[in-house]
Amino acid sequence: MKNRTSREPFRDRARAEILTLALSIVAKEGLQGLQARRIAREAGCSVGSLYNIFGDLDGLVIAANVETVAALEKALLASFSATEGQPIDARLLDLALAYSRFALENLNLWRAIFAHRLPPNQDVPPSYRADQARLLSLISTIIADEISDRKLRDRAARALFAAVHGIVALAIDSKLEAFEEARMQDEVRFIVKAAAAGLKSAM
Amino acid sequence: MKNRTSREPFRDRARAEILTLALSIVAKEGLQGLQARRIAREAGCSVGSLYNIFGDLDGLVIAANVETVAALEKALLASFSATEGQPIDARLLDLALAYSRFALENLNLWRAIFAHRLPPNQDVPPSYRADQARLLSLISTIIADEISDRKLRDRAARALFAAVHGIVALAIDSKLEAFEEARMQDEVRFIVKAAAAGLKSAM
Repeated sequence: MKNRTSREPFRDRARAEILTLALSIVAKEGLQGLQARRIAREAGCSVGSLYNIFGDLDGLVIAANVETVAALEKALLASFSATEGQPIDARLLDLALAYSRFALENLNLWRAIFAHRLPPNQDVPPSYRADQARLLSLISTIIADEISDRKLRDRAARALFAAVHGIVALAIDSKLEAFEEARMQDEVRFIVKAAAAGLKSAM
Repeated sequence: MKNRTSREPFRDRARAEILTLALSIVAKEGLQGLQARRIAREAGCSVGSLYNIFGDLDGLVIAANVETVAALEKALLASFSATEGQPIDARLLDLALAYSRFALENLNLWRAIFAHRLPPNQDVPPSYRADQARLLSLISTIIADEISDRKLRDRAARALFAAVHGIVALAIDSKLEAFEEARMQDEVRFIVKAAAAGLKSAM
């Protein structure tokens, strides 16, 4: 490292390097591969520096999940833009299938978002909630004409997301039967079509 | 142990004792508390006997999950019987809320059903799939008048279950916002009502 480099850029670079390493470990091995000592060793820094930058291991996991949520947002935004002007059920379905594809293509990273649990009485940083809120707002925007009340609409968006997520998660983990992508898509299609058709009756 | 006791009853008793111990550990500490050496020590048997009875640790986890699924079936059957004769959406909603209550009241045991993953290319025993199928058939039975095709009906039942499960799981883990039971119930209510109203449109 050159002498004239100030402390901040070093910290930023170390942060970026550790994060890249963490993402590659999670992608290959899942969340259980993330141990502080191992990361420090592979990144060539001390465990102290690691904690100094990320607070603790949970902080590093959240930082990694922030990156995954950003990649997910990109995938969902692509669907959102591509379906503009289409009927609600078609738009919701395209978004849901984009979600299921993202999960399959980024299996361990996607799992890490949901497998990570903070100690009781701790919550994720507000910025992470804001990232999630932007994703959920894609659904809210699509159903805006059907549900005018903002609170009910946000509730519907959360419920729709969680419903599709449940189908994808149980299918990928072969929880109800051995995994088959086409079958998962059929179930996603069913719930999205049914819910879209019944949207107003549920308010 | 009395001398005249034959080998089979001993094995059955040991199996029941280990299972009770395993369930109590999972209930208190979650799946991560189940280690072979610890269980053998606390049950007063050898690790060899443990494996001899359950095959391996996965076998013990599955045996514990079979018990939890049986308790869940009891809770869901109570709802199923109590709502006979009521409209479809009311029956599905009662069943879904019974599911969410079971999850909350048996948090770690319920989590263990979904957190446990077998090594790739291994599947749970057929009897465990049959247990799950009986639970899903409660949903299939409720929607039988709406969807006459058996295959489509079973798909709808799986999708409905997974959708409700997704809402309950993300809510309990505070994944989209801090947990609030009433909010989770509102989301369950939304998806069940919407899906029930749109059931035929989705076929």
